[in-house]
Amino acid sequence: MSGLFISFEGIDGVGKSTQIDLLEKHLSQLGRKTLRSFEPGGTELGQEIRNMLLHRKGQLGARAEALLFAADRAHHSDTKVKPALAEGIDVILDRYLDSSVAYQGVGRDLDAKQIRDLSLFAVQGLLPNLTILLDMDAAAALARRDKTGNEPDRLESEKVEFFEAVRQGYLKLAAAEPERFFVVDASQGIEQMAELIRARVDELLK
Amino acid sequence: MSGLFISFEGIDGVGKSTQIDLLEKHLSQLGRKTLRSFEPGGTELGQEIRNMLLHRKGQLGARAEALLFAADRAHHSDTKVKPALAEGIDVILDRYLDSSVAYQGVGRDLDAKQIRDLSLFAVQGLLPNLTILLDMDAAAALARRDKTGNEPDRLESEKVEFFEAVRQGYLKLAAAEPERFFVVDASQGIEQMAELIRARVDELLK
Repeated sequence: MSGLFISFEGIDGVGKSTQIDLLEKHLSQLGRKTLRSFEPGGTELGQEIRNMLLHRKGQLGARAEALLFAADRAHHSDTKVKPALAEGIDVILDRYLDSSVAYQGVGRDLDAKQIRDLSLFAVQGLLPNLTILLDMDAAAALARRDKTGNEPDRLESEKVEFFEAVRQGYLKLAAAEPERFFVVDASQGIEQMAELIRARVDELLK
Repeated sequence: MSGLFISFEGIDGVGKSTQIDLLEKHLSQLGRKTLRSFEPGGTELGQEIRNMLLHRKGQLGARAEALLFAADRAHHSDTKVKPALAEGIDVILDRYLDSSVAYQGVGRDLDAKQIRDLSLFAVQGLLPNLTILLDMDAAAALARRDKTGNEPDRLESEKVEFFEAVRQGYLKLAAAEPERFFVVDASQGIEQMAELIRARVDELLK
């Protein structure tokens, strides 16, 4: 007996939170128990690590940073994700190891395989049953995010380029694991997307 | 131009600090600049990580702990060890990656290769030119450590067994890399040991 393990991925502004809300509702209507969490920072230790990263003065190297994120992931996996799955609870994560690969792999001196291996070490190889990638043009996603007022920001072209590179990284990951990934065009309407996601999850539940 | 990189290893009580003092003195008499440091915790970030580990309530899994130690090592390497070596300064470390392998490998569910790979990732493969392993019977070393009054403690047999397993782990590592390791019998007198170490280091400097 194991719960379903689903991760949501995609750059900021594609609408992950909304779709997670809707999928949670759907699963609970089917009578399933769910645990919703996020990475990085989904545990107390994770928050401490996050604070440590945010409040430092000096620069942190790419390796030290990747190892701290992996420590957070290991702890989250040990104390939340795996225990829930073992009790038959479905786990929905807002970001998991593909985020590390897609984000840390851009413009850093670490390669995708190293970051992936580090994450797999952290979680003892636990991959989601399904990874839902909400895909959207980076400029459009950033414009949408900034409109929410949570993080107002000018749309510098450098920023758009960075997120577009992350997006392309995600698409590459999805192409390499078509069984695990479900890529959803996030420029569609919310309800249309939710319907596609529900259908894919219902398939898995059969 | 690169400084000499030397690490000291061995269980508590074998006399690492004293021998590092003496080697530092020797190198400085030869007109060489040295940097002395230690792991874990040899940087500000490292101290924060150490505090985090010490002041937590819940248990931390073996993987999360190993990743945090590796993050500390990466940062120490990036900000202290490598810059010094690049300037031609000799670096002497009280514990380096062999400590992680020898200590974390005992009674945990991680194997030596995983811990070693993690450390090598953290430091981009940087191994010391010379690793001096001070070797001594665990019961004798613990008795010596406890006599210093720094950490008075009853000599429980469980504790002796643990440190004896760590010691055996170290000896295995030394046997696998005879070029890098120099094993010194730490039951000898301080000056005898120092003389052996000086001779070995002088050989390297030729």
